[in-house]
Amino acid sequence: MNKKPLILVTNDDGINAPGLRALIKIMSGIGEVFVVAPDSPQSAMGHAITINSILHCKKIKSDNINTIEYSCSGTPADCVKLAINEILDRKPDICVSGINHGSNSSINVVYSGTMSAAIEAGIQGVPAIGFSLLDFKWNADFKPFKNYIKKITLEVINNPTHKNLILNVNLPKLKENQIKGIKICRQANTTWLEKFDKRSNPMGEKYYWLTGTFLNNDNGIDTDEWALDNNYISIVPTQFDLTDHNMIQTLKKWDL
Amino acid sequence: MNKKPLILVTNDDGINAPGLRALIKIMSGIGEVFVVAPDSPQSAMGHAITINSILHCKKIKSDNINTIEYSCSGTPADCVKLAINEILDRKPDICVSGINHGSNSSINVVYSGTMSAAIEAGIQGVPAIGFSLLDFKWNADFKPFKNYIKKITLEVINNPTHKNLILNVNLPKLKENQIKGIKICRQANTTWLEKFDKRSNPMGEKYYWLTGTFLNNDNGIDTDEWALDNNYISIVPTQFDLTDHNMIQTLKKWDL
Repeated sequence: MNKKPLILVTNDDGINAPGLRALIKIMSGIGEVFVVAPDSPQSAMGHAITINSILHCKKIKSDNINTIEYSCSGTPADCVKLAINEILDRKPDICVSGINHGSNSSINVVYSGTMSAAIEAGIQGVPAIGFSLLDFKWNADFKPFKNYIKKITLEVINNPTHKNLILNVNLPKLKENQIKGIKICRQANTTWLEKFDKRSNPMGEKYYWLTGTFLNNDNGIDTDEWALDNNYISIVPTQFDLTDHNMIQTLKKWDL
Repeated sequence: MNKKPLILVTNDDGINAPGLRALIKIMSGIGEVFVVAPDSPQSAMGHAITINSILHCKKIKSDNINTIEYSCSGTPADCVKLAINEILDRKPDICVSGINHGSNSSINVVYSGTMSAAIEAGIQGVPAIGFSLLDFKWNADFKPFKNYIKKITLEVINNPTHKNLILNVNLPKLKENQIKGIKICRQANTTWLEKFDKRSNPMGEKYYWLTGTFLNNDNGIDTDEWALDNNYISIVPTQFDLTDHNMIQTLKKWDL
Protein backbone atom coordinates (compact mmCIF):
# COMPACT_ATOMS: atom_id res chain seq x y z
CA MET A 1 0.00 0.00 0.00
CA ASN A 2 1.58 3.28 -1.09
CA LYS A 3 -0.43 5.80 0.80
CA LYS A 4 -1.28 5.50 4.45
CA PRO A 5 -4.47 3.57 5.15
CA LEU A 6 -7.50 5.69 6.02
CA ILE A 7 -8.89 4.52 9.36
CA LEU A 8 -12.40 5.45 10.50
CA VAL A 9 -12.64 5.38 14.30
CA THR A 10 -15.89 5.37 16.26
CA ASN A 11 -17.42 3.97 19.46
CA ASP A 12 -20.55 3.92 21.58
CA ASP A 13 -19.26 5.39 24.85
CA GLY A 14 -18.99 8.83 23.27
CA ILE A 15 -16.22 10.99 21.88
CA ASN A 16 -14.65 11.73 25.28
CA ALA A 17 -14.37 8.10 26.43
CA PRO A 18 -10.84 7.01 27.42
CA GLY A 19 -11.31 3.82 25.38
CA LEU A 20 -11.80 5.88 22.21
CA ARG A 21 -8.84 8.11 23.01
CA ALA A 22 -6.67 5.01 23.50
CA LEU A 23 -7.84 3.56 20.17
CA ILE A 24 -7.16 6.84 18.32
CA LYS A 25 -3.64 6.86 19.72
CA ILE A 26 -2.95 3.29 18.56
CA MET A 27 -4.45 3.94 15.12
CA SER A 28 -2.43 7.12 14.57
CA GLY A 29 0.62 4.84 14.52
CA ILE A 30 -0.89 2.89 11.61
CA GLY A 31 -2.55 5.38 9.29
CA GLU A 32 -4.54 8.53 8.69
CA VAL A 33 -7.17 8.72 11.43
CA PHE A 34 -10.68 10.07 10.95
CA VAL A 35 -13.01 10.04 13.95
CA VAL A 36 -16.80 10.32 13.84
CA ALA A 37 -18.15 9.41 17.27
CA PRO A 38 -21.34 10.05 19.27
CA ASP A 39 -21.40 13.28 21.31
CA SER A 40 -22.83 11.34 24.29
CA PRO A 41 -22.82 7.72 25.55
CA GLN A 42 -24.83 5.32 23.37
CA SER A 43 -24.29 1.99 25.12
CA ALA A 44 -26.77 -0.83 24.46
CA MET A 45 -28.20 1.11 21.51
CA GLY A 46 -28.10 -2.02 19.35
CA HIS A 47 -28.33 -1.20 15.67
CA ALA A 48 -30.55 1.84 16.14
CA ILE A 49 -30.46 4.51 13.43
CA THR A 50 -32.02 7.97 13.32
CA ILE A 51 -34.76 8.20 10.69
CA ASN A 52 -37.43 10.38 12.30
CA SER A 53 -35.14 13.10 13.52
CA ILE A 54 -32.17 15.17 12.41
CA LEU A 55 -28.47 14.60 12.93
CA HIS A 56 -25.88 17.17 13.94
CA CYS A 57 -22.23 16.55 13.18
CA LYS A 58 -19.54 19.06 14.15
CA LYS A 59 -15.81 19.12 13.52
CA ILE A 60 -14.00 19.42 16.84
CA LYS A 61 -10.43 20.14 17.84
CA SER A 62 -8.30 17.04 18.21
CA ASP A 63 -5.43 16.47 20.65
CA ASN A 64 -3.73 14.32 18.05
CA ILE A 65 -1.79 15.69 15.11
CA ASN A 66 -3.02 14.32 11.78
CA THR A 67 -6.34 13.28 13.30
CA ILE A 68 -9.63 14.77 12.16
CA GLU A 69 -12.52 14.48 14.60
CA TYR A 70 -16.28 14.94 14.34
CA SER A 71 -18.78 14.78 17.18
CA CYS A 72 -22.20 13.49 16.08
CA SER A 73 -25.63 13.63 17.73
CA GLY A 74 -26.60 10.20 16.40
CA THR A 75 -26.13 6.54 17.25
CA PRO A 76 -22.94 4.56 16.49
CA ALA A 77 -24.52 3.22 13.28
CA ASP A 78 -25.49 6.80 12.29
CA CYS A 79 -21.86 7.90 12.80
CA VAL A 80 -20.60 5.23 10.41
CA LYS A 81 -23.25 5.94 7.76
CA LEU A 82 -22.56 9.67 7.94
CA ALA A 83 -18.77 9.25 7.88
CA ILE A 84 -18.67 6.90 4.88
CA ASN A 85 -21.44 8.45 2.80
CA GLU A 86 -21.20 12.15 3.56
CA ILE A 87 -18.12 13.38 5.40
CA LEU A 88 -15.20 11.34 4.04
CA ASP A 89 -14.08 11.99 0.49
CA ARG A 90 -12.76 8.45 0.01
CA LYS A 91 -13.81 5.08 1.35
CA PRO A 92 -11.91 4.16 4.53
CA ASP A 93 -9.67 1.09 4.40
CA ILE A 94 -10.97 -0.04 7.76
CA CYS A 95 -13.36 1.00 10.52
CA VAL A 96 -12.45 0.36 14.15
CA SER A 97 -14.94 0.79 16.96
CA GLY A 98 -14.22 1.04 20.69
CA ILE A 99 -12.33 0.36 22.79
CA ASN A 100 -15.57 -0.35 24.61
CA HIS A 101 -15.66 -0.07 28.37
CA GLY A 102 -17.25 -3.48 29.01
CA SER A 103 -17.69 -6.84 27.31
CA ASN A 104 -19.39 -7.41 23.97
CA SER A 105 -18.78 -11.16 23.89
CA SER A 106 -21.41 -13.86 23.27
CA ILE A 107 -25.05 -12.64 23.33
CA ASN A 108 -23.95 -9.09 24.25
CA VAL A 109 -23.09 -8.52 20.57
CA VAL A 110 -26.82 -8.21 19.86
CA TYR A 111 -27.23 -5.19 22.17
CA SER A 112 -23.86 -3.60 21.51
CA GLY A 113 -23.51 -0.11 20.08
CA THR A 114 -19.79 -0.73 19.56
CA MET A 115 -20.51 -3.76 17.40
CA SER A 116 -23.43 -2.11 15.58
CA ALA A 117 -20.93 0.48 14.31
CA ALA A 118 -18.61 -2.31 13.12
CA ILE A 119 -21.51 -4.22 11.54
CA GLU A 120 -22.72 -1.06 9.79
CA ALA A 121 -19.24 -0.58 8.30
CA GLY A 122 -19.28 -4.23 7.13
CA ILE A 123 -22.68 -3.64 5.49
CA GLN A 124 -21.16 -0.60 3.71
CA GLY A 125 -18.31 -2.77 2.40
CA VAL A 126 -15.67 -1.46 4.81
CA PRO A 127 -13.82 -4.15 6.83
CA ALA A 128 -14.39 -3.49 10.52
CA ILE A 129 -13.30 -4.43 14.01
CA GLY A 130 -15.05 -3.81 17.31
CA PHE A 131 -12.73 -3.83 20.32
CA SER A 132 -14.14 -4.29 23.84
CA LEU A 133 -12.39 -4.63 27.18
CA LEU A 134 -13.96 -6.67 29.99
CA ASP A 135 -13.78 -3.73 32.35
CA PHE A 136 -16.62 -1.22 32.75
CA LYS A 137 -14.52 1.29 34.64
CA TRP A 138 -13.89 4.69 33.07
CA ASN A 139 -10.22 4.47 34.15
CA ALA A 140 -9.75 0.94 32.77
CA ASP A 141 -6.20 0.12 31.66
CA PHE A 142 -6.02 -0.20 27.87
CA LYS A 143 -2.20 -0.26 27.66
CA PRO A 144 -1.73 -4.06 27.85
CA PHE A 145 -3.62 -4.47 24.56
CA LYS A 146 -1.83 -1.92 22.40
CA ASN A 147 0.31 -4.40 20.48
CA TYR A 148 -2.52 -6.90 20.01
CA ILE A 149 -4.87 -4.22 18.71
CA LYS A 150 -2.20 -2.99 16.31
CA LYS A 151 -1.46 -6.54 15.08
CA ILE A 152 -5.14 -7.43 14.50
CA THR A 153 -5.82 -4.12 12.71
CA LEU A 154 -2.78 -4.49 10.42
CA GLU A 155 -3.76 -8.08 9.58
CA VAL A 156 -7.23 -6.90 8.48
CA ILE A 157 -5.74 -4.03 6.44
CA ASN A 158 -3.31 -6.48 4.81
CA ASN A 159 -6.13 -8.86 3.81
CA PRO A 160 -8.38 -6.43 1.96
CA THR A 161 -10.23 -9.06 -0.10
CA HIS A 162 -12.87 -9.53 2.60
CA LYS A 163 -14.88 -6.33 2.17
CA ASN A 164 -17.65 -7.36 4.56
CA LEU A 165 -15.31 -8.68 7.23
CA ILE A 166 -16.45 -7.83 10.74
CA LEU A 167 -14.47 -8.94 13.79
CA ASN A 168 -15.78 -8.89 17.34
CA VAL A 169 -12.65 -8.65 19.49
CA ASN A 170 -12.94 -8.94 23.27
CA LEU A 171 -10.02 -8.30 25.61
CA PRO A 172 -9.77 -10.03 29.01
CA LYS A 173 -9.01 -7.73 31.98
CA LEU A 174 -5.39 -8.78 32.45
CA LYS A 175 -1.85 -7.49 32.57
CA GLU A 176 0.15 -7.84 29.37
CA ASN A 177 2.26 -10.77 30.63
CA GLN A 178 -0.90 -12.67 31.68
CA ILE A 179 -2.42 -12.66 28.16
CA LYS A 180 -1.89 -16.06 26.51
CA GLY A 181 -2.59 -14.92 22.94
CA ILE A 182 -5.49 -14.75 20.49
CA LYS A 183 -8.22 -17.34 19.78
CA ILE A 184 -10.56 -17.38 16.78
CA CYS A 185 -13.94 -18.35 18.23
CA ARG A 186 -17.66 -18.73 17.71
CA GLN A 187 -20.18 -16.70 19.71
CA ALA A 188 -21.00 -18.62 22.92
CA ASN A 189 -24.64 -19.54 23.48
CA THR A 190 -25.37 -17.55 26.62
CA THR A 191 -28.27 -15.71 28.21
CA TRP A 192 -28.98 -13.10 30.84
CA LEU A 193 -31.21 -14.07 33.73
CA GLU A 194 -33.11 -10.81 33.74
CA LYS A 195 -34.37 -9.24 36.90
CA PHE A 196 -36.19 -5.93 37.16
CA ASP A 197 -35.60 -3.81 40.22
CA LYS A 198 -39.03 -2.31 40.93
CA ARG A 199 -39.18 1.03 42.72
CA SER A 200 -41.57 3.90 43.41
CA ASN A 201 -40.88 7.54 42.54
CA PRO A 202 -41.67 10.39 44.98
CA MET A 203 -45.21 10.53 43.51
CA GLY A 204 -45.73 6.86 44.32
CA GLU A 205 -45.59 5.70 40.70
CA LYS A 206 -43.82 2.45 39.86
CA TYR A 207 -40.72 2.30 37.68
CA TYR A 208 -38.13 -0.33 36.81
CA TRP A 209 -34.38 -0.72 36.43
CA LEU A 210 -33.15 -3.59 34.26
CA THR A 211 -30.62 -5.78 36.06
CA GLY A 212 -29.49 -9.32 35.39
CA THR A 213 -27.09 -12.18 35.89
CA PHE A 214 -25.02 -13.56 33.03
CA LEU A 215 -25.47 -17.30 32.38
CA ASN A 216 -23.12 -19.35 30.22
CA ASN A 217 -24.72 -22.69 29.37
CA ASP A 218 -22.28 -23.37 26.55
CA ASN A 219 -19.56 -25.92 27.35
CA GLY A 220 -17.77 -25.52 24.03
CA ILE A 221 -14.04 -24.80 24.14
CA ASP A 222 -14.32 -23.03 20.78
CA THR A 223 -16.35 -20.11 22.17
CA ASP A 224 -15.42 -16.53 23.00
CA GLU A 225 -16.41 -17.04 26.64
CA TRP A 226 -14.04 -20.01 26.96
CA ALA A 227 -11.19 -18.02 25.40
CA LEU A 228 -11.74 -15.04 27.72
CA ASP A 229 -12.08 -17.27 30.81
CA ASN A 230 -8.76 -18.85 29.84
CA ASN A 231 -6.84 -15.58 29.43
CA TYR A 232 -7.05 -15.33 25.64
CA ILE A 233 -8.19 -12.45 23.50
CA SER A 234 -11.29 -13.67 21.59
CA ILE A 235 -12.05 -12.88 17.95
CA VAL A 236 -15.46 -13.83 16.56
CA PRO A 237 -16.01 -13.24 12.82
CA THR A 238 -19.44 -11.63 12.69
CA GLN A 239 -22.02 -11.33 9.93
CA PHE A 240 -25.24 -9.50 9.13
CA ASP A 241 -27.03 -12.37 7.40
CA LEU A 242 -29.38 -13.34 10.24
CA THR A 243 -30.92 -16.25 8.32
CA ASP A 244 -31.04 -19.49 10.30
CA HIS A 245 -30.09 -21.52 7.22
CA ASN A 246 -30.45 -24.89 9.02
CA MET A 247 -34.06 -24.11 9.84
CA ILE A 248 -35.11 -23.52 6.20
CA GLN A 249 -35.50 -27.23 5.39
CA THR A 250 -37.46 -27.87 8.61
CA LEU A 251 -39.89 -25.04 7.85
CA LYS A 252 -40.40 -26.25 4.29
CA LYS A 253 -41.92 -29.44 5.76
CA TRP A 254 -44.43 -27.48 7.83
CA ASP A 255 -48.00 -26.95 6.67
CA LEU A 256 -47.55 -23.37 5.48
CA MET B 1 -53.13 -28.03 24.36
CA ASN B 2 -55.77 -27.88 27.06
CA LYS B 3 -55.70 -24.27 28.01
CA LYS B 4 -55.64 -21.40 25.58
CA PRO B 5 -52.15 -20.40 24.43
CA LEU B 6 -50.77 -17.25 26.04
CA ILE B 7 -49.76 -14.80 23.32
CA LEU B 8 -47.46 -11.86 24.00
CA VAL B 9 -48.06 -9.06 21.49
CA THR B 10 -45.74 -6.13 20.92
CA ASN B 11 -44.49 -3.85 18.13
CA ASP B 12 -42.24 -0.87 17.40
CA ASP B 13 -44.76 1.60 15.99
CA GLY B 14 -46.27 2.12 19.45
CA ILE B 15 -49.36 0.93 21.29
CA ASN B 16 -51.80 3.00 19.21
CA ALA B 17 -50.57 1.82 15.81
CA PRO B 18 -53.29 0.31 13.58
CA GLY B 19 -50.92 -2.57 12.76
CA LEU B 20 -50.76 -3.55 16.43
CA ARG B 21 -54.52 -3.22 16.84
CA ALA B 22 -55.03 -5.51 13.80
CA LEU B 23 -52.60 -8.08 15.24
CA ILE B 24 -54.31 -8.03 18.66
CA LYS B 25 -57.65 -8.69 16.95
CA ILE B 26 -56.29 -11.67 15.02
CA MET B 27 -54.54 -13.10 18.10
CA SER B 28 -57.65 -12.80 20.29
CA GLY B 29 -59.19 -15.44 18.00
CA ILE B 30 -56.32 -17.83 18.87
CA GLY B 31 -55.56 -17.42 22.57
CA GLU B 32 -55.22 -15.28 25.64
CA VAL B 33 -53.67 -11.98 24.56
CA PHE B 34 -51.21 -9.97 26.65
CA VAL B 35 -49.87 -6.74 25.15
CA VAL B 36 -46.75 -4.87 26.26
CA ALA B 37 -45.94 -2.26 23.64
CA PRO B 38 -43.96 1.00 23.50
CA ASP B 39 -45.87 4.15 24.47
CA SER B 40 -44.40 5.96 21.43
CA PRO B 41 -43.01 5.00 17.99
CA GLN B 42 -39.66 3.14 18.17
CA SER B 43 -38.95 2.43 14.50
CA ALA B 44 -35.36 1.69 13.48
CA MET B 45 -34.40 1.24 17.13
CA GLY B 46 -32.56 -1.98 16.30
CA HIS B 47 -31.90 -4.08 19.37
CA ALA B 48 -31.54 -1.11 21.73
CA ILE B 49 -32.26 -1.71 25.41
CA THR B 50 -32.55 0.72 28.32
CA ILE B 51 -29.74 0.25 30.84
CA ASN B 52 -28.84 3.79 31.92
CA SER B 53 -32.35 4.99 32.55
CA ILE B 54 -35.61 3.85 34.12
CA LEU B 55 -38.62 2.19 32.53
CA HIS B 56 -42.25 3.00 33.12
CA CYS B 57 -44.91 0.43 32.36
CA LYS B 58 -48.61 1.15 32.91
CA LYS B 59 -51.68 -1.04 32.55
CA ILE B 60 -54.10 0.63 30.16
CA LYS B 61 -57.73 0.03 29.21
CA SER B 62 -58.14 -2.29 26.26
CA ASP B 63 -60.87 -2.17 23.60
CA ASN B 64 -60.73 -5.95 23.40
CA ILE B 65 -62.40 -8.26 25.88
CA ASN B 66 -59.94 -10.77 27.41
CA THR B 67 -56.95 -8.66 26.40
CA ILE B 68 -54.60 -7.16 28.97
CA GLU B 69 -52.54 -4.21 27.79
CA TYR B 70 -49.50 -2.39 29.13
CA SER B 71 -47.91 0.75 27.68
CA CYS B 72 -44.15 0.91 28.26
CA SER B 73 -41.65 3.77 28.02
CA GLY B 74 -38.89 1.49 26.67
CA THR B 75 -37.76 0.02 23.38
CA PRO B 76 -39.38 -3.05 21.76
CA ALA B 77 -36.67 -5.31 23.30
CA ASP B 78 -37.32 -3.71 26.72
CA CYS B 79 -41.05 -4.48 26.36
CA VAL B 80 -40.34 -8.16 25.74
CA LYS B 81 -37.83 -8.46 28.60
CA LEU B 82 -40.22 -6.72 31.00
CA ALA B 83 -43.24 -8.77 29.91
CA ILE B 84 -41.54 -12.17 30.18
CA ASN B 85 -39.44 -11.56 33.29
CA GLU B 86 -41.56 -9.22 35.38
CA ILE B 87 -45.18 -8.73 34.35
CA LEU B 88 -46.41 -12.12 33.14
CA ASP B 89 -46.89 -14.88 35.70
CA ARG B 90 -46.24 -17.65 33.19
CA LYS B 91 -44.04 -17.93 30.12
CA PRO B 92 -45.94 -17.04 26.94
CA ASP B 93 -46.39 -19.77 24.33
CA ILE B 94 -45.48 -17.32 21.59
CA CYS B 95 -44.55 -13.69 21.03
CA VAL B 96 -45.84 -11.85 17.96
CA SER B 97 -44.53 -8.43 16.97
CA GLY B 98 -46.10 -5.99 14.51
CA ILE B 99 -47.84 -5.73 12.22
CA ASN B 100 -45.15 -3.26 11.24
CA HIS B 101 -46.05 -0.37 8.96
CA GLY B 102 -43.23 -0.93 6.47
CA SER B 103 -40.88 -3.67 5.27
CA ASN B 104 -38.42 -5.55 7.45
CA SER B 105 -37.15 -7.82 4.70
CA SER B 106 -33.51 -8.42 3.76
CA ILE B 107 -30.99 -6.02 5.39
CA ASN B 108 -33.81 -4.06 7.08
CA VAL B 109 -34.00 -6.80 9.72
CA VAL B 110 -30.80 -5.39 11.26
CA TYR B 111 -32.39 -1.98 11.97
CA SER B 112 -35.86 -3.23 12.80
CA GLY B 113 -37.47 -2.62 16.18
CA THR B 114 -40.24 -5.07 15.25
CA MET B 115 -37.72 -7.84 14.66
CA SER B 116 -35.61 -6.91 17.70
CA ALA B 117 -38.67 -7.67 19.84
CA ALA B 118 -39.08 -11.05 18.12
CA ILE B 119 -35.35 -11.80 18.44
CA GLU B 120 -35.42 -10.85 22.13
CA ALA B 121 -38.28 -13.30 22.69
CA GLY B 122 -36.27 -15.99 20.87
CA ILE B 123 -33.29 -15.27 23.13
CA GLN B 124 -35.62 -15.70 26.13
CA GLY B 125 -36.74 -19.10 24.81
CA VAL B 126 -40.14 -17.94 23.56
CA PRO B 127 -40.89 -18.76 19.89
CA ALA B 128 -41.55 -15.51 18.05
CA ILE B 129 -42.80 -14.01 14.82
CA GLY B 130 -42.34 -10.51 13.47
CA PHE B 131 -44.99 -9.46 10.94
CA SER B 132 -44.35 -6.51 8.60
CA LEU B 133 -46.43 -5.11 5.76
CA LEU B 134 -44.75 -3.44 2.79
CA ASP B 135 -46.83 -0.31 3.30
CA PHE B 136 -45.64 2.60 5.46
CA LYS B 137 -49.06 4.27 5.52
CA TRP B 138 -50.85 4.58 8.86
CA ASN B 139 -54.11 3.52 7.16
CA ALA B 140 -52.55 0.48 5.45
CA ASP B 141 -54.93 -2.40 4.80
CA PHE B 142 -54.08 -5.37 7.04
CA LYS B 143 -57.27 -7.35 6.27
CA PRO B 144 -55.92 -9.40 3.31
CA PHE B 145 -53.39 -11.06 5.64
CA LYS B 146 -55.65 -12.12 8.49
CA ASN B 147 -55.88 -15.80 7.53
CA TYR B 148 -52.19 -16.08 6.67
CA ILE B 149 -51.13 -14.52 9.98
CA LYS B 150 -53.47 -16.87 11.85
CA LYS B 151 -52.15 -19.91 9.96
CA ILE B 152 -48.47 -19.07 10.53
CA THR B 153 -49.05 -18.31 14.23
CA LEU B 154 -50.96 -21.58 14.80
CA GLU B 155 -48.24 -23.55 13.01
CA VAL B 156 -45.59 -22.12 15.36
CA ILE B 157 -47.77 -22.81 18.42
CA ASN B 158 -48.32 -26.38 17.22
CA ASN B 159 -44.56 -26.98 16.81
CA PRO B 160 -43.38 -26.00 20.28
CA THR B 161 -40.09 -27.94 20.17
CA HIS B 162 -38.22 -25.00 18.64
CA LYS B 163 -37.93 -22.71 21.68
CA ASN B 164 -35.61 -20.22 19.97
CA LEU B 165 -37.58 -20.10 16.72
CA ILE B 166 -37.79 -16.59 15.26
CA LEU B 167 -39.62 -15.93 12.00
CA ASN B 168 -39.33 -12.75 9.97
CA VAL B 169 -42.60 -12.57 8.02
CA ASN B 170 -43.05 -9.88 5.37
CA LEU B 171 -46.35 -9.26 3.64
CA PRO B 172 -46.52 -7.83 0.10
CA LYS B 173 -48.90 -4.89 -0.38
CA LEU B 174 -51.59 -6.79 -2.27
CA LYS B 175 -55.25 -7.72 -2.24
CA GLU B 176 -56.08 -11.14 -0.80
CA ASN B 177 -56.78 -12.72 -4.20
CA GLN B 178 -53.42 -11.47 -5.55
CA ILE B 179 -51.34 -13.28 -2.88
CA LYS B 180 -49.84 -16.45 -4.33
CA GLY B 181 -48.98 -18.09 -1.00
CA ILE B 182 -46.04 -18.38 1.40
CA LYS B 183 -42.33 -18.94 0.63
CA ILE B 184 -39.64 -20.00 3.12
CA CYS B 185 -36.62 -17.85 2.22
CA ARG B 186 -33.17 -16.67 3.11
CA GLN B 187 -32.42 -12.99 3.79
CA ALA B 188 -31.51 -11.30 0.49
CA ASN B 189 -28.11 -9.67 0.28
CA THR B 190 -29.13 -6.05 -0.23
CA THR B 191 -27.90 -2.59 0.70
CA TRP B 192 -29.10 0.97 0.99
CA LEU B 193 -27.42 3.58 -1.13
CA GLU B 194 -27.31 6.17 1.62
CA LYS B 195 -27.69 9.85 0.93
CA PHE B 196 -27.73 12.60 3.53
CA ASP B 197 -29.94 15.59 2.89
CA LYS B 198 -27.86 18.49 4.25
CA ARG B 199 -29.72 21.57 5.49
CA SER B 200 -29.17 24.66 7.61
CA ASN B 201 -31.26 25.62 10.63
CA PRO B 202 -32.48 29.21 11.24
CA MET B 203 -29.19 29.89 13.10
CA GLY B 204 -27.20 28.82 10.04
CA GLU B 205 -25.98 25.55 11.58
CA LYS B 206 -25.77 22.45 9.42
CA TYR B 207 -27.86 19.36 10.07
CA TYR B 208 -28.63 16.14 8.19
CA TRP B 209 -31.56 13.90 7.33
CA LEU B 210 -30.79 10.30 6.44
CA THR B 211 -32.32 9.25 3.11
CA GLY B 212 -31.47 6.40 0.79
CA THR B 213 -32.29 4.16 -2.11
CA PHE B 214 -32.76 0.42 -1.68
CA LEU B 215 -30.46 -1.74 -3.83
CA ASN B 216 -31.02 -5.46 -4.39
CA ASN B 217 -27.88 -7.02 -5.88
CA ASP B 218 -29.01 -10.55 -5.03
CA ASN B 219 -30.30 -12.57 -8.00
CA GLY B 220 -31.28 -15.61 -5.91
CA ILE B 221 -34.82 -16.90 -6.27
CA ASP B 222 -34.66 -18.27 -2.72
CA THR B 223 -34.62 -14.81 -1.12
CA ASP B 224 -37.28 -12.83 0.71
CA GLU B 225 -36.99 -10.01 -1.85
CA TRP B 226 -37.70 -12.43 -4.72
CA ALA B 227 -40.72 -13.87 -2.91
CA LEU B 228 -42.18 -10.40 -2.18
CA ASP B 229 -41.53 -9.19 -5.74
CA ASN B 230 -43.37 -12.26 -6.98
CA ASN B 231 -46.48 -11.78 -4.83
CA TYR B 232 -45.59 -14.26 -2.09
CA ILE B 233 -45.48 -13.76 1.66
CA SER B 234 -41.85 -14.29 2.74
CA ILE B 235 -40.76 -16.14 5.88
CA VAL B 236 -37.09 -16.01 6.88
CA PRO B 237 -36.06 -18.12 9.90
CA THR B 238 -33.87 -15.77 11.92
CA GLN B 239 -31.18 -16.36 14.54
CA PHE B 240 -29.13 -14.46 17.10
CA ASP B 241 -25.87 -16.34 16.57
CA LEU B 242 -24.06 -13.70 14.53
CA THR B 243 -20.91 -15.85 14.06
CA ASP B 244 -19.73 -16.04 10.46
CA HIS B 245 -18.90 -19.74 10.83
CA ASN B 246 -17.42 -20.00 7.32
CA MET B 247 -14.89 -17.32 8.14
CA ILE B 248 -13.47 -19.12 11.19
CA GLN B 249 -11.20 -21.44 9.15
CA THR B 250 -9.94 -18.52 7.01
CA LEU B 251 -9.04 -16.48 10.07
CA LYS B 252 -7.23 -19.41 11.66
CA LYS B 253 -4.76 -19.27 8.75
CA TRP B 254 -4.02 -15.58 9.36
CA ASP B 255 -0.96 -14.47 11.29
CA LEU B 256 -2.76 -13.71 14.56
